[in-house]
Amino acid sequence: MRIAELSSRSGTSIPSIKFYLREGLLPAGTATGRTQAQYDEAHVQRLRLIRALIDVGGLSVAAVREVLAAVDAPDLPRHSMLGVAHCLVTRSGRRSTDDPVWRAARAEVVEMIRRRGWYVYDGSPSIDSAADAIAAMRDLAQDDLLSGLETYLEAAERVAARDVEIVVARAEPSRMVEGVVTGTVLGEALFNALRRMAQEDASARRLVPAEDLAAFDPTTR
Amino acid sequence: MRIAELSSRSGTSIPSIKFYLREGLLPAGTATGRTQAQYDEAHVQRLRLIRALIDVGGLSVAAVREVLAAVDAPDLPRHSMLGVAHCLVTRSGRRSTDDPVWRAARAEVVEMIRRRGWYVYDGSPSIDSAADAIAAMRDLAQDDLLSGLETYLEAAERVAARDVEIVVARAEPSRMVEGVVTGTVLGEALFNALRRMAQEDASARRLVPAEDLAAFDPTTR
Repeated sequence: MRIAELSSRSGTSIPSIKFYLREGLLPAGTATGRTQAQYDEAHVQRLRLIRALIDVGGLSVAAVREVLAAVDAPDLPRHSMLGVAHCLVTRSGRRSTDDPVWRAARAEVVEMIRRRGWYVYDGSPSIDSAADAIAAMRDLAQDDLLSGLETYLEAAERVAARDVEIVVARAEPSRMVEGVVTGTVLGEALFNALRRMAQEDASARRLVPAEDLAAFDPTTR
Repeated sequence: MRIAELSSRSGTSIPSIKFYLREGLLPAGTATGRTQAQYDEAHVQRLRLIRALIDVGGLSVAAVREVLAAVDAPDLPRHSMLGVAHCLVTRSGRRSTDDPVWRAARAEVVEMIRRRGWYVYDGSPSIDSAADAIAAMRDLAQDDLLSGLETYLEAAERVAARDVEIVVARAEPSRMVEGVVTGTVLGEALFNALRRMAQEDASARRLVPAEDLAAFDPTTR
């Protein structure tokens, strides 16, 4: 197909497609003239993946480039895929590791991992991310939010068990890497949206007077 | 305190502090000379909140400005706080609402809300966010990830109930707005990090041969 069809099939503008081609995110098409090229189904799929990672996942173009390199790498051991995917999509905290509040928070995360008996890479970027969030809560005197930690841990375990089960069930390894990346990025976007809706529901039930609840009644939609 | 002490107390560089002052994120100090000003404890707290929203929550400077305006608004009804906070921190999907895949995904989300009996604002940005994620999974032929939806819904309800319980328990309304904002932004960052660690654990147990698991053993840390 020509670039105009690729654009309409993938819902991506022609200037954006040209940008992704220049940036090396999208492989070049087959040249059919000095200024024309043909694209195929693989280009449509790749463009959809790029847009999902950028628009829904909020990843930078640089991060997407690294994710795609991992997706295209042929021989990654299956368990390593998850580590690679997590490293790629985890924003590195900018917190100084000399900060005593951060160091205490990180030690707390490691102790929590030990207590739950979780097998987690020692260098996992998620340990630092969790420490970033806990240290920020402490700094802001919002420690009471941490009283929900056990509920978080149990919910995280249940959700993660299901996530891994689904991806492991896939037959082709190449589909697994893609599943790990999209599962991590899109699965988090989905879960966060569901959680916000569930918070709105819990808040309405606690704070909105019964006679006003009808305004939020989903059955009238 | 002078700006140098404000910088060391809040872990924010002097150029960054001057930028936040210029951008109106941080209120001016009390002028004590032509080029000098005094700052107080409220400035330290405000800077910590700004840094947490930007560094841990990944919010833009423009989004932080809107969040702070909501935190400073005096008379928001308690339930509205959550809606305002969610609108502010929810990235709007860039998906065309004419797209049939997206429209089908959104209808599915509304049906799911109805089925669970959730009280959710009809215009809640989280409905669109959930539709964005589901439509992206469909486009990428990763529909099987959606087979975990029931697990997600139950986990989201449990986590949200705990979140709301903690914030409602706070006595002062001003602390509640801050709690809703930090709870949403930092709570999500924390939950996502815990979920990634739980995925690493579940993946290790499924995919790593027993004799190699010791490399991930948390008790040796």
